[in-house]
Amino acid sequence: MTSAGVIVEYNPFHNGHLHHLNETKKAANADVIVAVMSGSFLQRGEPALVDKWTRTQMALKNGIDLVVELPYVYATQKAEIFAKGAISILNSLGVDYVCFGSESGDIEEFQETASFIEMHEKDYNERIKYYMGQGNSYPKASSLAFESLEGHAHVLDLSQPNNILGYHYVKAIQAQNALIEPLTILRTKAGYHDQDFVDKRIASATGIRRELFKGSSLDQIQAYVPEPTYFELTNYQRTYDSFQGWHNLYHLLRYKLLTSSNVHLSSIYEAEEGLENRLATMAKQAQTFQSFMELVKTKRYTWTRIQRLALHILTQTSKNDMLPALENKDAPYVRILGMTKAGRSFLNERKNSLPVPLVSNINQFDHPFLTVERRASHVYALGYSGFHQEVFLQKEHKSVPIMID
Amino acid sequence: MTSAGVIVEYNPFHNGHLHHLNETKKAANADVIVAVMSGSFLQRGEPALVDKWTRTQMALKNGIDLVVELPYVYATQKAEIFAKGAISILNSLGVDYVCFGSESGDIEEFQETASFIEMHEKDYNERIKYYMGQGNSYPKASSLAFESLEGHAHVLDLSQPNNILGYHYVKAIQAQNALIEPLTILRTKAGYHDQDFVDKRIASATGIRRELFKGSSLDQIQAYVPEPTYFELTNYQRTYDSFQGWHNLYHLLRYKLLTSSNVHLSSIYEAEEGLENRLATMAKQAQTFQSFMELVKTKRYTWTRIQRLALHILTQTSKNDMLPALENKDAPYVRILGMTKAGRSFLNERKNSLPVPLVSNINQFDHPFLTVERRASHVYALGYSGFHQEVFLQKEHKSVPIMID
Repeated sequence: MTSAGVIVEYNPFHNGHLHHLNETKKAANADVIVAVMSGSFLQRGEPALVDKWTRTQMALKNGIDLVVELPYVYATQKAEIFAKGAISILNSLGVDYVCFGSESGDIEEFQETASFIEMHEKDYNERIKYYMGQGNSYPKASSLAFESLEGHAHVLDLSQPNNILGYHYVKAIQAQNALIEPLTILRTKAGYHDQDFVDKRIASATGIRRELFKGSSLDQIQAYVPEPTYFELTNYQRTYDSFQGWHNLYHLLRYKLLTSSNVHLSSIYEAEEGLENRLATMAKQAQTFQSFMELVKTKRYTWTRIQRLALHILTQTSKNDMLPALENKDAPYVRILGMTKAGRSFLNERKNSLPVPLVSNINQFDHPFLTVERRASHVYALGYSGFHQEVFLQKEHKSVPIMID
Repeated sequence: MTSAGVIVEYNPFHNGHLHHLNETKKAANADVIVAVMSGSFLQRGEPALVDKWTRTQMALKNGIDLVVELPYVYATQKAEIFAKGAISILNSLGVDYVCFGSESGDIEEFQETASFIEMHEKDYNERIKYYMGQGNSYPKASSLAFESLEGHAHVLDLSQPNNILGYHYVKAIQAQNALIEPLTILRTKAGYHDQDFVDKRIASATGIRRELFKGSSLDQIQAYVPEPTYFELTNYQRTYDSFQGWHNLYHLLRYKLLTSSNVHLSSIYEAEEGLENRLATMAKQAQTFQSFMELVKTKRYTWTRIQRLALHILTQTSKNDMLPALENKDAPYVRILGMTKAGRSFLNERKNSLPVPLVSNINQFDHPFLTVERRASHVYALGYSGFHQEVFLQKEHKSVPIMID
């Protein structure tokens, strides 16, 4: 069986994702597609629009064969750590290919860039530090540092978000000596940051979420998502009334910020340079998450950087909790969220050679990362009203993986 | 000017309180009545039905001349510490009398009992320990210990809640060598724990609150409260829609319990014998505060004991925060919440001889107790919806005391 991995958030699964999935199957000539998917919280420091179980359903019904979870400790991190976790999990599963979308579309550009930066690593890191010292955000400084390296080949535009991620995937494959061949597919139509509907069939997930948060009817986004997504979102909305977002959790963040000592806040991951105290001060004034973010925002700190810190404060994720994700080379387990028949065959083929435990039920396995995961899930659940909390937590704590034919 | 102090919660001010106030004026022949009133949270570990500023209005319009705050660090404690703080504040203000309601009604009984227990203190404390070791709650063990002392005179029934408080007031006066003469007035009609309306004019505060939480119209309780209380409650309900209670704050307590480490929880005041872990476990299951309490409750721990721990967890009040309230003899400041003209004259007469600072605006004075107070106020405010939080916090942080003619 030829297998390919994709690294996804599916927040929610839309036509662009379907396009990428179909192209991946072709490019890798794959029998099985494995998705490493973020759980309750996402890379930009946001709660997922719909819970991980619903998103797993969407993925499986749209053609993914096996969905495994990218743990919170990787999923909510900057590209480098995010990529390390995702690649390590795909490597444990022994997939043949990983295929990512990019603005470049040319895998050789990534490989050359990774080799080039590796050769100039010390210089590159010093330049990043320099540009950050000038008051630039980390992504901006990385891009400027790369551009300023002599002979930087001009091949890859590292100011593009999917190119950055792709670069880190390729770099992680090299660093882990993973037997995975990277492939890339040119992203079409909707850019990552485009919030408008630029085409009749393809819209970014950000644009779709914006429509949903505006309170638009699901009909408004129907053209941009495959049928199984529309079905799942309709079901979800009928069950939970509203979609999950920071607006459902801000009251808890605010409570936390208003009651925590500076010493405690400074123990939280990503609490640096007193940014955490700025958050605490602004929480006193701000009644909504939107106004809170606008008060906190400065040139130095990106929206994402602030949201991630806010998220780690909300979920009480400390520097200590994150340390193993930063220091260790490999992800310590693979948690299965769901699979099709083909996914099951693939797992049966692989399971005896897996270098780490395969986890179906988090109550039958323990690891410090799962303590963080459980806490994050509990917090995510508190964004729902009473009865629905239970429904979600039952799924999270008692479910075996979702199986579909 | 002859002055008398009363120690109150006024949650809310009702006809029984008015009776006590009038009897106090007579018994002390007082020109001025000073009330030491709990702020946002009360001795039984509950948020006040209406905020401290509204309760101050009620008190002043009903005949109190000066309202000062009993700080959180005393107000939410067992009788001994509660009494120490309240008496110390009255002593700082130099009142001539303190007058409390009791089931006994005879001040000599209190004085004899205080002297008797002081003489047998070591024996008494050992017996309390013994009865607690048998699985009794602290109040029950205290009562049993007293009853078991040989020659205990049988004078004071220390199983009655107001007798217990009165005993601690008298004991605190003795311990602080306070120049205050204690007086007591027989409580009539409604017992502390009576929840039913036993008389047409007098109902307990507990009974009144129960009616209000049932969603009864204010007309239902109009007969049991003086006109100014009815007026203030009507206004309050019009402004805030609902009365404050644990039901408005449980979601924050639950979040806190679900995200805190055992180590952190064990640093909270009143976290002992692992009771805090029991709370954390039950919070996972319980969707409402009522069901949470019912799950946590055991014979060993009274409802009040559990509620107080829950409250300190909610407000993040640690053992360290409380230490000075336990160890120091005197309350470190007097915070004025409101006064009438007569109250102002009284303060003018006294203010140069006050042994501690007189605080009108908590932004112009600092003390660790006020850090706790501010945090508690913030948490109390989070029980309101958005706009009303601001209204309350403005009052708390920017108001000078309420003045009425």
